[in-house]
Amino acid sequence: MQPKSNIVHLPVYQPGKPVEDVKRELGLTEVIKLASNENPFGCSESAKEAVIHEISNNASIYPDGASVELTKVLADRLGVSTDSIIFGCGSDEVILMLTRAFLVPGDETIMADQTFSVYKHNAEVENARVVEVPLVNGKHDLPAMLARITDRTKIVWVCNPNNPTGTIVSKEEIDAFMKQVPSHVLVVLDEAYVEYVTDPSFPDGIELLPSYKNLIVLRTFSKIYGLASLRIGYGVGHPDVVRFINQVREPFNTSRVAQAAAIAALKDEAFVAECRDRNSEGLNYMREQFDRLGLPYFDAHGNFIMFDAKLPSPQVFDALLRKGIISRAGWQFYPTYIRITVGSREQNEKFITALEQVLQEAAVLG
Amino acid sequence: MQPKSNIVHLPVYQPGKPVEDVKRELGLTEVIKLASNENPFGCSESAKEAVIHEISNNASIYPDGASVELTKVLADRLGVSTDSIIFGCGSDEVILMLTRAFLVPGDETIMADQTFSVYKHNAEVENARVVEVPLVNGKHDLPAMLARITDRTKIVWVCNPNNPTGTIVSKEEIDAFMKQVPSHVLVVLDEAYVEYVTDPSFPDGIELLPSYKNLIVLRTFSKIYGLASLRIGYGVGHPDVVRFINQVREPFNTSRVAQAAAIAALKDEAFVAECRDRNSEGLNYMREQFDRLGLPYFDAHGNFIMFDAKLPSPQVFDALLRKGIISRAGWQFYPTYIRITVGSREQNEKFITALEQVLQEAAVLG
Repeated sequence: MQPKSNIVHLPVYQPGKPVEDVKRELGLTEVIKLASNENPFGCSESAKEAVIHEISNNASIYPDGASVELTKVLADRLGVSTDSIIFGCGSDEVILMLTRAFLVPGDETIMADQTFSVYKHNAEVENARVVEVPLVNGKHDLPAMLARITDRTKIVWVCNPNNPTGTIVSKEEIDAFMKQVPSHVLVVLDEAYVEYVTDPSFPDGIELLPSYKNLIVLRTFSKIYGLASLRIGYGVGHPDVVRFINQVREPFNTSRVAQAAAIAALKDEAFVAECRDRNSEGLNYMREQFDRLGLPYFDAHGNFIMFDAKLPSPQVFDALLRKGIISRAGWQFYPTYIRITVGSREQNEKFITALEQVLQEAAVLG
Repeated sequence: MQPKSNIVHLPVYQPGKPVEDVKRELGLTEVIKLASNENPFGCSESAKEAVIHEISNNASIYPDGASVELTKVLADRLGVSTDSIIFGCGSDEVILMLTRAFLVPGDETIMADQTFSVYKHNAEVENARVVEVPLVNGKHDLPAMLARITDRTKIVWVCNPNNPTGTIVSKEEIDAFMKQVPSHVLVVLDEAYVEYVTDPSFPDGIELLPSYKNLIVLRTFSKIYGLASLRIGYGVGHPDVVRFINQVREPFNTSRVAQAAAIAALKDEAFVAECRDRNSEGLNYMREQFDRLGLPYFDAHGNFIMFDAKLPSPQVFDALLRKGIISRAGWQFYPTYIRITVGSREQNEKFITALEQVLQEAAVLG
């Protein structure tokens, strides 16, 4: 009764600390969680209404396993065919399905050395060899990743904007990269934060799809759409690739309420636009404040920013926690960096006030 | 860009036909779906309220990945330790995790030849060798399954009551079986329909756990709890086994709304008791009617019953469909059998009326 030997020592994912735990453990009444890149403005009211309608009328009925209605709405929105789309229980599950469909023991898969941890975890479950390529200034080094491709390479992961650094690769860079990737290698372009990006050099992965059959784009309803609680994300790619992923999909992998909420969320474009605008203001505020405090930071394009606190990050994490701010620390290659979600204006100001106090107490600031 | 060669030709799961599709395709205004063993009485009102509360307040917040609160409530209810429990996106996902954690290519896994199709699908994704043992009178043949165990056997699946036949193995039978299963073999006892069973000889899998470290019990909130729309199920087993499964679990595999609904559902024991009673009445009615019509059926213990229509089942399925009843047909080893969910009293009566007409029209009845 032994499991696969390669899974026994895998690290378990460490999620952002829940607000209630922090309140209880530290005796705090107000705690702000800026640890999980959640939308501080919630979700569209119409998405809530859709959930309430579904649970009130169809609680006991299985979801449509193929998400037919949601697929139609999304395909229309993106201008792709319905057989180009696959939904998952978060884009996490699309990552799981990709690795489960494509990787066998000994296959190679290439990713940045500091990126979304779910790629590596799933590749290791499949006993694939994970090739990690160092970021340069927090950014994917696409030429270096290209240079690591071999005959055994099956999947290359590009997170754009990259989690946790927030940096982007440009349309020009990804185009140059894709042109050189051999056709036997699948490139996964994870665009979980795409709706936040305002930089004109940023590529829209969907527009790249007609040029590259070996490209799949991942997106989610957990970020700007504010539906992290419901678990729904998707992949868009060539129908042949999507068909292969569908082969390993569980029959009812997304819930009825998540499908209904996603349809409603897609139709509420005003909510998305407002969240993007408020996030841009928040990012600007954060940059100004880090500049004022003399703290370096990576060029951020999502709803989070990673900065150098110039102190061991676990120490800064703990000190912020005692002031009621949950951040994210412990980045292997950035031991003094903290990743902080862009919250509401009030949350951002409270965070900066707390950070300034922490740094003053540690005598980093004068 | 080729997927694993063993997944390319896997069959895709065929779910029960949705009501809306049937209405549209056949121009019917009233359609009764008795195809997916859903609860005709919906779910607990308090479960609905819990979902509405969560979506209203915490839509954008990730779920507690470890389901801490729900785990506590369930552990208390079952009288097991919290580290004995793992939740999945339906018990389907627990099956996925089991195969992904334990099976490597060439491993053997044993199951009945007509049972829940998700076992075989997941085993095939892992490229394991599936050993199928014929049912006897619709019932698991545990001695024959035991005889097929080899050094390469990793998992044996026992669905109790069995889907689709509805039959059970007794406590005595499962005890005798477990005593002879070598300790290197994991036995998965799938009790998706356990809460419906009233037969005193039926084993409660949870009570067997202290005796057998190599046993894991699967259960779900999709059946008697009426929460199929939300996707949540669980496994209960030895903490060592559960820890292994946790190694391959996605960080946020169950939704916040599903966790909240499950907690509320567990507390509403009156709803469960009422559904069990009404199901028992419905089962009795179905047996009486099949007896009256001279149609053989398997000994049913869940919320469904499988009967011999004495005609090719696709023909009966189509004829029932045209009368607004969605049933389930196409069972490989039972070409004249139909599986029908026990619905409300009114639904059951309409089904029997439709069936009688179908059989008369086909001149099976006089």
